Amino acid sequence: MDERPAMDELVPRLRELARADGEHGEAALLTALHPADLAAALPALTEEERFALLRRVPAAAGGQLLEYLDEEGRAALAAAVAPDALPALLDAAPAERAANVLRLLDPDRRRETLAALARRDEVAPLLAYPDESAGGIMRSGFVSLREELSAEGALAALRRLRPRADRAYYLYTVDGEGRLRGVVSVRDLIVAAPDAPLAGLADRDVHAVDADMDREDVARTLRRYNLLAIPVVDGAGRLVGATTADEVIDVLAEEATEDMYRMVGMDESERVFGPVRSSVRRRLPWMLVNLLWAFLAAAVVNLFDGTLARFTLLAALMPVVAGQAGNAGAQTATIAVRGMALGELGPRDALRATRKETAVGFANGLAVGAVAGGALYLWEGNAVLSAVLAGALAGAIALATLIGAVIPLGLKWRGVDPALAANIFVTGATDILSFALFLGLAALLIGRIV
Amino acid sequence: MDERPAMDELVPRLRELARADGEHGEAALLTALHPADLAAALPALTEEERFALLRRVPAAAGGQLLEYLDEEGRAALAAAVAPDALPALLDAAPAERAANVLRLLDPDRRRETLAALARRDEVAPLLAYPDESAGGIMRSGFVSLREELSAEGALAALRRLRPRADRAYYLYTVDGEGRLRGVVSVRDLIVAAPDAPLAGLADRDVHAVDADMDREDVARTLRRYNLLAIPVVDGAGRLVGATTADEVIDVLAEEATEDMYRMVGMDESERVFGPVRSSVRRRLPWMLVNLLWAFLAAAVVNLFDGTLARFTLLAALMPVVAGQAGNAGAQTATIAVRGMALGELGPRDALRATRKETAVGFANGLAVGAVAGGALYLWEGNAVLSAVLAGALAGAIALATLIGAVIPLGLKWRGVDPALAANIFVTGATDILSFALFLGLAALLIGRIV
Repeated sequence: MDERPAMDELVPRLRELARADGEHGEAALLTALHPADLAAALPALTEEERFALLRRVPAAAGGQLLEYLDEEGRAALAAAVAPDALPALLDAAPAERAANVLRLLDPDRRRETLAALARRDEVAPLLAYPDESAGGIMRSGFVSLREELSAEGALAALRRLRPRADRAYYLYTVDGEGRLRGVVSVRDLIVAAPDAPLAGLADRDVHAVDADMDREDVARTLRRYNLLAIPVVDGAGRLVGATTADEVIDVLAEEATEDMYRMVGMDESERVFGPVRSSVRRRLPWMLVNLLWAFLAAAVVNLFDGTLARFTLLAALMPVVAGQAGNAGAQTATIAVRGMALGELGPRDALRATRKETAVGFANGLAVGAVAGGALYLWEGNAVLSAVLAGALAGAIALATLIGAVIPLGLKWRGVDPALAANIFVTGATDILSFALFLGLAALLIGRIV
Repeated sequence: MDERPAMDELVPRLRELARADGEHGEAALLTALHPADLAAALPALTEEERFALLRRVPAAAGGQLLEYLDEEGRAALAAAVAPDALPALLDAAPAERAANVLRLLDPDRRRETLAALARRDEVAPLLAYPDESAGGIMRSGFVSLREELSAEGALAALRRLRPRADRAYYLYTVDGEGRLRGVVSVRDLIVAAPDAPLAGLADRDVHAVDADMDREDVARTLRRYNLLAIPVVDGAGRLVGATTADEVIDVLAEEATEDMYRMVGMDESERVFGPVRSSVRRRLPWMLVNLLWAFLAAAVVNLFDGTLARFTLLAALMPVVAGQAGNAGAQTATIAVRGMALGELGPRDALRATRKETAVGFANGLAVGAVAGGALYLWEGNAVLSAVLAGALAGAIALATLIGAVIPLGLKWRGVDPALAANIFVTGATDILSFALFLGLAALLIGRIV
């Protein structure tokens, strides 16, 4: 039994290896390590270190490594390996990983590399599917058996085919045209009478997904039915592969990261140890969009300069309203974005969800407004000012929850990623709303405040 | 082949069924539906509708349903089913799901229900593990075979045991004491010579996890090695079960939801259609904590009332600085929280991560400061004011990224969930910092501004 090596020890060793250029003895580490551990350590290295390491990975080890790399890692590997060494490396990888890498290459290099593959007939058909589809995340090498076969005949076929152990979990039965008919387990085969036909043994109630289904929908389907693999069929119902739960785990983790990052205005490809330059480039544009909103909000505040000049405490209190409303809007937006990602919130539920959030916002707004108004009264002893703060808080929080629900749902409806809403629209809109409401109320009642 | 029923159609039918109390014919829907679809539809119902439905689920259908329910659904089922009907329902469920439900009951009801189970000897040992551990999320019913068996003997054992098809994927080999020794696939058994001993067929390089390992670590291990199941061993190395990828998918989805919710100050058990009252109760406390911070920030602003009174445009511009800095802090905190959740960011990397984020923040701060200062100069034509805004933005953004990195890492180090950082500490701290920096600079230079 194996212990997972601690990243804290592995990373410095790899870093050293990356620096000690070309030594033969040290490169043995790359082959001796479990490829999954090497893949897990790569994101902690700098771009240069990673390049120096991947450049020297032997073809067989590189093929195994590919199984465990995420998209960023695959791109780094493809960039580091010499063009004439790439085909041998891809031939040593599972066919679907070879296809993942080929999709990343420019058309010319893709064509040349594909032509040089020994297994090009196995890999080429996979290139028809985009990365984001069921076909793009399916594994090849699954076993399909004609349903006319007997249990004994199926076992004989398995002995002949010798599929990878982790592809022999579900055996799919097909008709004469290759159309998916059912699923049978190896357990069923060995328990059944030798001459029992597969058609009788197979479970016909099999969930399949279309090859062009979005990979997030595939992930949700597999998750809903607690499956370890789900077969993928083409437009004619023919079995073309299967997606496994380990691929779905990666899809769900990537999608969750993407949503979390977009909600604070970041690109999903940001990594803890990505290069500084690319982090700046990726975050700056969103910050400038936010700056535009902020100036708009400043212009709104500036409309009330007369009121502010007469009573500067208003300037100190206005961020209280904006902060609370912004937070309430972000909460609702998070619930809406996550609910849609998990498939709990469909388009027809939108109205109900919005109503519920507005009710929550109204109740929270009243409560926060009452507490804040009371606290301010204890601080300043100005009853009218306290009422203005309480009223503005209650109104701004209630409206912010409405905004936080409506904007993501509206973006989804228009085909835009709802996760983008939280940062760009919700905060900006709740800021402007809060300032206008609080300072507007104060301006109306300024005579009674001062 | 099955089509997934559209939730939009299923939910109204279930709602109707919940209202038509006690009719026999309609309850057939609960048995005819795929239990996974019923489980997926439940969160869209109100508490009362769910209760009315679950109260009438027959024991066999309820046992199947249990496989697909999340923790909230299990609690709802346990609350709806009559105490004397619960044992029959749990006996119809997988043993690990029965244990999930028993853990939710109060000690008396747990004892009584367990005593009434036909399969109590299978379920009772599982109760020793907490829900959050490897033992708490493992499946029972996995096959373990003595490594002295021959391939033929192992196949005979499988025919006798008839394990559930989805538990016969990996067969674990054990020694005379039940200690895990290796893993062998059914494929290997049928391909091998009949008299080949398992000890020779089994792969000894098997990743196992301790029963008391935190379930998040289990999920990360399974994910890193692209496994569909991982064996669970006790302190003596004895095989006690295995965790499957479908359980890990649920763990990872729940943890991601928890992180996203906590980052905006919400409880992880909030659902889109949870009751309004509980949503209010769960969000309000965090809003009041934020209110405290907001008042602190207001007090800081109020220190500069003289400056603000002389030049009210400062009041309009101060939220620009706070908004940008808050956003930069939230971005860094998100990267840190997600990096720790995915296992990409270990404690020893903390310093490097902080240094990188500060560099990004410094660069972004300079850029945003330059743009904002330039825009303000075009608007107002006041060079000193523009310089104050640019300088405050650059400084506040750079410091906010530092805060956004340091606070989550520090919380993690102190054993507190770092996701709590973003909402409670980072925003409050960046607000205060931004106001102090901008108004402080303005107060120093007020003579040259006005």
